[in-house]
Amino acid sequence: MQNFDLTILGCSSNSYFKTNPTAQLLNIAERFFLIDCGEATQIQLRRYKLKFQRINHIFISHLHGDHYLGLLGLLSSMHLLGRTTELHLYCPAELQEIIEVQYKHSETRLNYQLVYHHHNYKNDEILFEDDKVVVTTIVLNHRIPCCGFKFTEKPLLANITKDTLAYYKIPVEQILSIKQGADFVSNDGTIIPNSKLVSNKATPRSYAYCSDTCYDERIIPFIKNVDLLYHEATFLHEKADRAKETYHTTALQAGQIAQKAEVKQLMIGHYSARYKDLQPLLDEARTMFDNTILAIEGENTKL
Amino acid sequence: MQNFDLTILGCSSNSYFKTNPTAQLLNIAERFFLIDCGEATQIQLRRYKLKFQRINHIFISHLHGDHYLGLLGLLSSMHLLGRTTELHLYCPAELQEIIEVQYKHSETRLNYQLVYHHHNYKNDEILFEDDKVVVTTIVLNHRIPCCGFKFTEKPLLANITKDTLAYYKIPVEQILSIKQGADFVSNDGTIIPNSKLVSNKATPRSYAYCSDTCYDERIIPFIKNVDLLYHEATFLHEKADRAKETYHTTALQAGQIAQKAEVKQLMIGHYSARYKDLQPLLDEARTMFDNTILAIEGENTKL
Repeated sequence: MQNFDLTILGCSSNSYFKTNPTAQLLNIAERFFLIDCGEATQIQLRRYKLKFQRINHIFISHLHGDHYLGLLGLLSSMHLLGRTTELHLYCPAELQEIIEVQYKHSETRLNYQLVYHHHNYKNDEILFEDDKVVVTTIVLNHRIPCCGFKFTEKPLLANITKDTLAYYKIPVEQILSIKQGADFVSNDGTIIPNSKLVSNKATPRSYAYCSDTCYDERIIPFIKNVDLLYHEATFLHEKADRAKETYHTTALQAGQIAQKAEVKQLMIGHYSARYKDLQPLLDEARTMFDNTILAIEGENTKL
Repeated sequence: MQNFDLTILGCSSNSYFKTNPTAQLLNIAERFFLIDCGEATQIQLRRYKLKFQRINHIFISHLHGDHYLGLLGLLSSMHLLGRTTELHLYCPAELQEIIEVQYKHSETRLNYQLVYHHHNYKNDEILFEDDKVVVTTIVLNHRIPCCGFKFTEKPLLANITKDTLAYYKIPVEQILSIKQGADFVSNDGTIIPNSKLVSNKATPRSYAYCSDTCYDERIIPFIKNVDLLYHEATFLHEKADRAKETYHTTALQAGQIAQKAEVKQLMIGHYSARYKDLQPLLDEARTMFDNTILAIEGENTKL
């Protein structure tokens, strides 16, 4: 089965020095998607021996510093280390202005093309699509415009075993159509139904990334049944007022969202600097949704 | 004697991952001056247990990312951790534009005042002055406008020992004027010359920071006889052409500058990522100026 795994590069909210601010690297079938890029993300990529020149797509959820301040350093290192492959940046339109004003004053000319794709923020939209993956936005509810991202595998082709190919004498040129669902007509005219030829195909997997947002059930249709939901859980619920005021979520609320959206697994993160011990956040989320894990810097989760 | 010491927070040019990009913390008589602020400087300050809320003055030499990309993260953490004391930023005028466009889009309002002081770049000027320290600029020669900074102690007051105070029965209210150079008239009318009263006062110390620049002897009058000169030495001299092309300096040239300026000690830094071993850079600089040291991340040098 093709790769589908997530590495946490940073999972703190701003000023939490024990871990880095938010950044994640998602690998789906050797497409490397960088999701948010807090300060020192390039150092984290190097620390965990993740080759950053393989990243061709960077997604920035919103313009709070803990989600994008590492971007210019990374773009610059990509340039200095010889990149020529174009890089796609899915971001608020204002980020282009922020980057361009800095490139103007530093007289920077990158050796590769930076291709901007702006979010619209108002409704979910397709940001990226190829033969393996589709990436859509999730409209979030934060103090400034913010969106999450949902990464979904394209329907996978079914498998045909070698034994089946040999038994029915299936010619090579018909394999793809059978994998796509066709029946097979053997030399004697017998129709072999597709269900007899292929093994159960794997269900496409999906990952939803909900960075900074207050508790908002309007996201549920967009994250329904995903295999893994990352949802921020900045505070314990005893700080629910503070969470509301700052447009963040409590661990309890993140668990509620996971429960209502019937996801398979919940990962919480974006911890406030006040929590030196993360166990109470995990325990609290689990009161609502048992299959919850903590985002931990450097850890890789396979879907 | 009052403190005068320098801590290296980062000393690499961009993309050199083994150390951080340029940032230094200079302490003169409990004034904490941050000099340049490459990415992850706030992490470095924390790593070396340097309390960053004591920094009231930040000097940015120029707008290449390896010298300023850590600034917004640091300013944000200062804010989030409760700072109310005003912060003075000595920088290119364009940096204010870069900061303000980001604060506009992130809707950031700092809880403390950020006071901008723009360089003029064209001639040396006084950027900061109080009763202990004066900071002046050094016009450098780089691809984009760039200046260094010279930090000089104000003339120090002389010392009077307790024994001298007791022997001549000097009243408390006359101590300051004697420290400043006055003679003393004793009760019987005898004039005691100042030289008999005070011990030799220390010579004011000075530190010159010359960040990115090509070899340019025009800086020599401005750094003449300083106690410590930091001068970039991005390349070995075998890369002199590359140094010239990129407006940088070789280790040999840094040694030449130190020799001609008759400084007491030279510290080299801003190493290119190509040098995994820094000893050849040190050896080369020492062929021109023996009292040379390497900038090493985390090391503290007392003047």
